[in-house]
Amino acid sequence: MDTHTRLEKKALAGLADEDLINRLETLQPDEAARLLRKLPAARRGAVRAKIAADRRSEIGRLADYSEEVAGGLMNSRYADVEPDTLCRDAVRQLVAEDEAETIYVAFVVDGDRRLIGRVGLRELLSAPREAVVRDIMAKAVDALNVDMPAEVAARSVSQSGLSVLPVVDAAGRLIGIVSHADASARLEEEASEDMERFAAVTGETQADYFSVPIWRDFLRRAPWILSLAIVGLLAGYVVHVYENALDALVILALYMPMVADTGGNVGTQTSGLLIRSIAMGRVTVASGFRVLGREIRVAMMLAAMLFAFAWLKVMFISNSADVPTGLTLNTIAFAIGVAIAIQVITSALIGAVLPLFALTIRQDPAVMAGPALTTIVDTTGLLMYFVITTSILGL
Amino acid sequence: MDTHTRLEKKALAGLADEDLINRLETLQPDEAARLLRKLPAARRGAVRAKIAADRRSEIGRLADYSEEVAGGLMNSRYADVEPDTLCRDAVRQLVAEDEAETIYVAFVVDGDRRLIGRVGLRELLSAPREAVVRDIMAKAVDALNVDMPAEVAARSVSQSGLSVLPVVDAAGRLIGIVSHADASARLEEEASEDMERFAAVTGETQADYFSVPIWRDFLRRAPWILSLAIVGLLAGYVVHVYENALDALVILALYMPMVADTGGNVGTQTSGLLIRSIAMGRVTVASGFRVLGREIRVAMMLAAMLFAFAWLKVMFISNSADVPTGLTLNTIAFAIGVAIAIQVITSALIGAVLPLFALTIRQDPAVMAGPALTTIVDTTGLLMYFVITTSILGL
Repeated sequence: MDTHTRLEKKALAGLADEDLINRLETLQPDEAARLLRKLPAARRGAVRAKIAADRRSEIGRLADYSEEVAGGLMNSRYADVEPDTLCRDAVRQLVAEDEAETIYVAFVVDGDRRLIGRVGLRELLSAPREAVVRDIMAKAVDALNVDMPAEVAARSVSQSGLSVLPVVDAAGRLIGIVSHADASARLEEEASEDMERFAAVTGETQADYFSVPIWRDFLRRAPWILSLAIVGLLAGYVVHVYENALDALVILALYMPMVADTGGNVGTQTSGLLIRSIAMGRVTVASGFRVLGREIRVAMMLAAMLFAFAWLKVMFISNSADVPTGLTLNTIAFAIGVAIAIQVITSALIGAVLPLFALTIRQDPAVMAGPALTTIVDTTGLLMYFVITTSILGL
Repeated sequence: MDTHTRLEKKALAGLADEDLINRLETLQPDEAARLLRKLPAARRGAVRAKIAADRRSEIGRLADYSEEVAGGLMNSRYADVEPDTLCRDAVRQLVAEDEAETIYVAFVVDGDRRLIGRVGLRELLSAPREAVVRDIMAKAVDALNVDMPAEVAARSVSQSGLSVLPVVDAAGRLIGIVSHADASARLEEEASEDMERFAAVTGETQADYFSVPIWRDFLRRAPWILSLAIVGLLAGYVVHVYENALDALVILALYMPMVADTGGNVGTQTSGLLIRSIAMGRVTVASGFRVLGREIRVAMMLAAMLFAFAWLKVMFISNSADVPTGLTLNTIAFAIGVAIAIQVITSALIGAVLPLFALTIRQDPAVMAGPALTTIVDTTGLLMYFVITTSILGL
């Protein structure tokens, strides 16, 4: 629950029933429904009962939808017309309409309120004198299903190029509209949330950087920091276990942080690109294997580059006095190069698999990336570094 | 330059002049201008000269604006009316208008084309019979300046709650409009770009995850990975220099990765929250000191938590056999606790200062965060860890 919501809940708790009802009756129905959803269930019923009957059903209907589905994003204040209305009468009807969010688009419904068309005020104004709505309406109308995920609905509206899309129930009846403005506000919020998850900040997105109390900011950040510190201890044990190898070959300490860090960086790139592509609706569970194929190929190119870098660095800019008898600088360079190459490939794989896995189990992919990924990959990377180098070098 | 742009450039190079001109003449002027901007300067002049004169000045004017300013975001196909027009004549004029992006909003200009008002088709339709536009228009009109940064302009449109905002030149003359749809497309692009920068991916945002060639994906990621690997070598030198301390007190190796990682995590949180707040226009250069004040306070709370965690961990879950004579477990716990606390505070400061600094020198704040920050903070953190622990423990 976000801070904004908490603050609102607190404010609502302190508000007398009459004041609350006044407020609910003056707000737009979608705003009122959002407010109503925030009341404790017991009070919600009591308050709803006191709202004027026509408003009540409207607001009540909206409040029943979760914010996670298209129904929670929609507004019930749309303009509708019947198919047999004369166009000029439809114009008059729209101009007189004083509650709709927009009168520039009207939806055409049949006797059962099923959505059968869409018509713009402009088309109505330029229609021939005796034309009826049915003659000029667009019959193939993109519509959102009330139960579809809100994020998918928002992206559809945003990509439709239209100012508003209608929302229908399972029977195809028109029950609301989602405007381009509401859709893009939702997408902005999702982008903020992804960024914060990616930066290992928990909880809902804050409305405004400065308005959140310091201690709440602390509470949003502390859980990840503490959890990752515990994971960091594991990396410490790995170094601890291999202290003898570090003693035997001091050059290993020199390249240890580079290998660990590089894994974190590659994993972050992969997961960052994927999370944004998932948010934009361009990567889905179905495309998972294609994603892995791509990431493996890119990772192999990065691995080859880093193998070459590490090998050249060890061969030509190392103090060869460090090399114990029985080993050559060439073998050491090869071992360190192999270790960093394998670290890069596994990190890219982990960076691709974690968001895809989150998507499969319907969790937010951004949660499993960023610092969490970096810390995990640091630990596995150190382990692989020591296992690989000590095996190749026989330490 | 993004891949999309490169591909387009390639396609443009292969197109005969006539085909190109045909295409430029059928596109919307803002789209045509975007295309024209992509031609090499020499060909641009030749092609422009062959476009029909009226289209030419329109497209040419738009192509002269950089994509970084409001002028590069605007469309010149707006509907305008004169203030003394009868409202019903204005309606007729709007309905007959066949080139404007929208006819539901008209801008009112005086004889010098200076913007003096704004009126909706709805208001025109419901105006009294003899009213003129001047009587019903809104006189206080929010307008964008053609030279303002495109991102600021896009955010203004998105937050205005209006479907379109007018763009004026320095003399207040109306020269274009920015629609809500164009503004939100731009903001989406910026959000993707921030995410990619934050994930250490260079270059312009890719249009589609799968459409980018593998080797180009590699080129977008390789520069940071290689640069950061070089920085990672510095961290290696730090460990190398303090190998004697690690030998003298093996417990130091256990906590070394935790201290380094925690710094990266705290820095990433701070910079992630800041970058998004900057993108949303909520943090500016002017608020820099307030940001630092907040971040220092949150960091002190996190530092206190981690001091306590490290101290308790060392005191109660360590093998006390590791303690050399002359030192107590309490002193060691204190030293490691102090080191992690100081690492947390400096990392938060670096995570706040880098984006603010980027903002001051008008660079993208997201570039100086994510993996770059993590790798830098790892290195400084290791150095502080060893300096602090060896000083306190007299190693």
